[in-house]
Amino acid sequence: MTAYAHAFASDNSAGTTPEILDAVARASSGPAAAYGNDTISAEVRRRLCEMFERDVDVLFTSTGSAANSLCLAALTPPWGSVLCHRESHVNNDECGAPEFFTAGAKLIPLPGDDAKIDPDALRAAVRHKKGDVHSVEPSVVSISQATETGGVLSLDEIRVLGEITEEAGLRLHMDGARFAGAVAALGCTPAEMSWRAGVDLLSFGATKNGTMTADAIVVFDRSLTPELMFRAKRAGQLTSKMRFQAAQLDAYLTDELWLRNARHANAMAARLQNGLKAIPGVELVAAADANIIFCRLPHHVTDGLLAQGYAFYHDRWEPGVARLVTSFATAPEDVDGLLTAISALS
Amino acid sequence: MTAYAHAFASDNSAGTTPEILDAVARASSGPAAAYGNDTISAEVRRRLCEMFERDVDVLFTSTGSAANSLCLAALTPPWGSVLCHRESHVNNDECGAPEFFTAGAKLIPLPGDDAKIDPDALRAAVRHKKGDVHSVEPSVVSISQATETGGVLSLDEIRVLGEITEEAGLRLHMDGARFAGAVAALGCTPAEMSWRAGVDLLSFGATKNGTMTADAIVVFDRSLTPELMFRAKRAGQLTSKMRFQAAQLDAYLTDELWLRNARHANAMAARLQNGLKAIPGVELVAAADANIIFCRLPHHVTDGLLAQGYAFYHDRWEPGVARLVTSFATAPEDVDGLLTAISALS
Amino acid sequence: MTAYAHAFASDNSAGTTPEILDAVARASSGPAAAYGNDTISAEVRRRLCEMFERDVDVLFTSTGSAANSLCLAALTPPWGSVLCHRESHVNNDECGAPEFFTAGAKLIPLPGDDAKIDPDALRAAVRHKKGDVHSVEPSVVSISQATETGGVLSLDEIRVLGEITEEAGLRLHMDGARFAGAVAALGCTPAEMSWRAGVDLLSFGATKNGTMTADAIVVFDRSLTPELMFRAKRAGQLTSKMRFQAAQLDAYLTDELWLRNARHANAMAARLQNGLKAIPGVELVAAADANIIFCRLPHHVTDGLLAQGYAFYHDRWEPGVARLVTSFATAPEDVDGLLTAISALS
Amino acid sequence: MTAYAHAFASDNSAGTTPEILDAVARASSGPAAAYGNDTISAEVRRRLCEMFERDVDVLFTSTGSAANSLCLAALTPPWGSVLCHRESHVNNDECGAPEFFTAGAKLIPLPGDDAKIDPDALRAAVRHKKGDVHSVEPSVVSISQATETGGVLSLDEIRVLGEITEEAGLRLHMDGARFAGAVAALGCTPAEMSWRAGVDLLSFGATKNGTMTADAIVVFDRSLTPELMFRAKRAGQLTSKMRFQAAQLDAYLTDELWLRNARHANAMAARLQNGLKAIPGVELVAAADANIIFCRLPHHVTDGLLAQGYAFYHDRWEPGVARLVTSFATAPEDVDGLLTAISALS
Repeated sequence: MTAYAHAFASDNSAGTTPEILDAVARASSGPAAAYGNDTISAEVRRRLCEMFERDVDVLFTSTGSAANSLCLAALTPPWGSVLCHRESHVNNDECGAPEFFTAGAKLIPLPGDDAKIDPDALRAAVRHKKGDVHSVEPSVVSISQATETGGVLSLDEIRVLGEITEEAGLRLHMDGARFAGAVAALGCTPAEMSWRAGVDLLSFGATKNGTMTADAIVVFDRSLTPELMFRAKRAGQLTSKMRFQAAQLDAYLTDELWLRNARHANAMAARLQNGLKAIPGVELVAAADANIIFCRLPHHVTDGLLAQGYAFYHDRWEPGVARLVTSFATAPEDVDGLLTAISALS
Repeated sequence: MTAYAHAFASDNSAGTTPEILDAVARASSGPAAAYGNDTISAEVRRRLCEMFERDVDVLFTSTGSAANSLCLAALTPPWGSVLCHRESHVNNDECGAPEFFTAGAKLIPLPGDDAKIDPDALRAAVRHKKGDVHSVEPSVVSISQATETGGVLSLDEIRVLGEITEEAGLRLHMDGARFAGAVAALGCTPAEMSWRAGVDLLSFGATKNGTMTADAIVVFDRSLTPELMFRAKRAGQLTSKMRFQAAQLDAYLTDELWLRNARHANAMAARLQNGLKAIPGVELVAAADANIIFCRLPHHVTDGLLAQGYAFYHDRWEPGVARLVTSFATAPEDVDGLLTAISALS
Repeated sequence: MTAYAHAFASDNSAGTTPEILDAVARASSGPAAAYGNDTISAEVRRRLCEMFERDVDVLFTSTGSAANSLCLAALTPPWGSVLCHRESHVNNDECGAPEFFTAGAKLIPLPGDDAKIDPDALRAAVRHKKGDVHSVEPSVVSISQATETGGVLSLDEIRVLGEITEEAGLRLHMDGARFAGAVAALGCTPAEMSWRAGVDLLSFGATKNGTMTADAIVVFDRSLTPELMFRAKRAGQLTSKMRFQAAQLDAYLTDELWLRNARHANAMAARLQNGLKAIPGVELVAAADANIIFCRLPHHVTDGLLAQGYAFYHDRWEPGVARLVTSFATAPEDVDGLLTAISALS
Repeated sequence: MTAYAHAFASDNSAGTTPEILDAVARASSGPAAAYGNDTISAEVRRRLCEMFERDVDVLFTSTGSAANSLCLAALTPPWGSVLCHRESHVNNDECGAPEFFTAGAKLIPLPGDDAKIDPDALRAAVRHKKGDVHSVEPSVVSISQATETGGVLSLDEIRVLGEITEEAGLRLHMDGARFAGAVAALGCTPAEMSWRAGVDLLSFGATKNGTMTADAIVVFDRSLTPELMFRAKRAGQLTSKMRFQAAQLDAYLTDELWLRNARHANAMAARLQNGLKAIPGVELVAAADANIIFCRLPHHVTDGLLAQGYAFYHDRWEPGVARLVTSFATAPEDVDGLLTAISALS
């Protein structure tokens, strides 16, 4: 795995944590009821109710794509539309999974800085041809927190989008692929950043922040739970040995591991960002609110880093721009090593 | 987990094995490329090529339902039909997952003893309204090995079904939910029981026999791999941290753990079966070729066992009939304890 | 069109009537609003409200298959099941159209004499695994009136099925491909045979009884209308020049043309049936309540009729059995000619 | 139908022609084989082979939406993308019908003047993330001729798009909603404007130019015909009394009625356009190559026309812009009347 010795490509190149490994090992002792009727799955639900300060339901999924797509399918009819940012993961990076799960709903890409949906664009979109059978029906708004480009919506920004959504009679989904990082960045409560701002269904986003093979949907509008259960089974997402997914989430939720991991990832990004600012020729090109940094690097620097085994995406968004992502597993010396390497190459 | 202290409900109530837990823990060290571009995923593919004595491709899935449904979707157009046994898992126990993944293909339930498709019924079905646009088009045959009722098709039986399928120009899928158990029962090679008998795509079925959150599709017709890759991503089955699924399979395939587990489960079923035969009032009602036993128990025996905390399905297929399933995790003393309990109650 | 000179193959081999042709010609004069916003479409709705003695909505479709599939899609979620007779048109003769429109719901074939669903089988089916996420959810019952084999359910028979459906919380669809013929046979009102017996959505079935390119859905549960409108547009069923479909239905509903046509078809079938009874060697094998007759013919008779240019289906249901269908366009002399031919050949 | 006395809203507000009504009436005499096995359907195919100077297959549809969606479904897998203009009918005006028929393929909206796809944008789009399972796969290009805003692509423009499509290994669909009008405008042959330029499947677009309830798909890549046949049946588009659709097309193709109708519609648009140019305060805002005119009208003129019973769309694309559409049924005096009305109001 040499190529990943210096890994800044994605937070999904990180492994997991000892707490989670231990929990999985403990979960294996003895038989257990299948399909979520085990005690660990129940415990995860209890912990999420506590975390979100209200009754919630939880469904485990194997990927964030499955979580997103199941949520969207429960919130729009096939003839509906999903209003999302044009840079969003659901729109660009899931191979049409939302279209598959929804039986062909249409994703309407909206503009906005920092991959945040522009409120005015949303105001127009929620009304666009509403009730006109010649057009898909605006049905659900999907926001990403943190966004695809590393921005974090403020509570006010979420509330504004939530109010536009609610006033228009649409539903609100949050793709929380980096939910923990956003909570850490805002210093708010999970409740404030989700249902209190109008979110109906949340893709919880545990994988990038520590779990291995388990993600989850948190259901605030619990009237949707039966439908989600059928949809999940039908999508091959109802695991028989669910305790092993539950154990991962259980450890993730214990003693705020989720928050500690996220804070660490954010701190490493801040350390990296601060270091980059001091290097001549390097330019930060987006607000790095959480653990994703976009910066402009001279081509010979990029080439030099790659030659040294650094892994990161570059020249993908625009020429000369690199994306650097930290995670709970990034060590301070990894960051410092990268900064030293860039300085030396500059 | 008291209710599962004496677990004979399903092989999915078992946990996992130390080898698999160790492999998962080892896989967590350091960063790794995501989405299957890691070294462990490559190693699993190498091991499966070795096991099946030919080039194969492999896709990891989170459930057997996902494996089955992806395979069927790659083997039938939406206007096609899936010929399967009326007792099969794909037909009865997946909430229409095959219909979802295939975009609405139709499952045609066929008769046959021991949940094995009757060859004559298949001969008629593969020709039924072939080419008639008013009817769904016979497209793929799906066989389960072992069957839903615990029977194991002989190599000859598979070959006959495979030949009917091939002669009619249809494709062959094997639901190998208990593939290892069937190999152990037949004493044949995995190749003989799959592609040598005509199987195009195999649901590998590791979960019931030891893994935690990982199953797999083994692709014999490798021209289907690109399509399967797109379908898997689109179905939310492409995990980012795939190394953690791969690690489970890697350990499962190392030193024939899969075969040792299966042999143990079968041996426990044989031990149980032999013991049951000796108990007056208990009647075996199906051939228990692998690790599933169907037997007729007096009602007071069933009630007594349940009162003692035994877990098993009963009165679901027909009144008075119980299903007892062993697994790699069943200990001889578990079996003996059950036999003693039944004897005492009889 | 020699092969159809003596047409008893299907009521869909008939053309149309002068009243309908005239209405279509009249409808062409001058411009009209598209997509159903024309005056003729409104008039058809008014006529159907009158005919059914209540407020109904109407959607035009180009085929009965489209009508059936749209109705079913509005009455079941994708994870639901459609309980229907195993001989029904939706199950056997629509190439999976219901599966397509419902996004993969499952059709559950039920037994029953004369292609009528057996009430006891329905009682079991409506409860089967209800609420169990491993199985499709019983959601809608679809009955055919008249049935695929020419039987007509009595009002009591419909009511019994309707009550089972309603008590179980399911919805009721009627495939009225031969609705008019059944009304004529029972001598009841359209209301009695539909919504008063519990029908939520009706495939009206005009094509076989006189129209050319227009069929319709009659909506009794009008809360389903918006969804049906979106589904119809999305399925390519919302015609721009809808007045030309409406004109056909308008004429069909004027001066009870629908009932006159149906009575004539039934009378021709009765005439044929009576004649057949008198011919030695010919055996009637099903109750011919409307315009479809199943009879056993000696093979040389079948061969002789075909040689004379008679068109009808034979040896399709069982060897030696022929199906003879009359229509509004069948003349008494056509029937008498056929009887003479059979007699001469016998 | 007062509101449509002065109809410039759409070419679909026109009725049909005497030739077509006569053909339909003639088609009704006597029985005929159903589902396209009649002689008139065969004759239409023969005529289309002649018109297109090669072997083609034909499928009748009830709407252009159905034709478009069936074509696209045959040309892209569910995980594929449809590259189309952002103003195209398939993208905006069919309520997601393409998404429904394709089982969830994604429409990628491309820019370009006059609703013509910009070749450079297409060059980028056909390569975009090709082969990357995280993204939908570029699969089919759909062009509209004439375009949604009334422009007509030149043969060179079509060829350029066709070559980009072919070189990238994608397929080409033409939405010919106004195919006849475009042929008339270019003065070319139907072959030149379709398969000779690379078109695989054509939505023939007869409804707007004269037929009532019949449209058609013309199949140039005949290997797609069996799939299209199954898809059409499954979509409820296979009519039993197909002769009545065929008769409309038969008359439409006889003695170049299609071309005469289209030339007339174009001539009326030219007459209108010339008249508008001479009226101060009226500004033409797009090239009116066929029968659609976009012009800027003062608001009091728009209001005045509406008050006089004129029907047309306005203020829908941008404030102050009106769309005026002529058809085969538009009379010179209708045009002159409108011009006089506008002059008087200006």
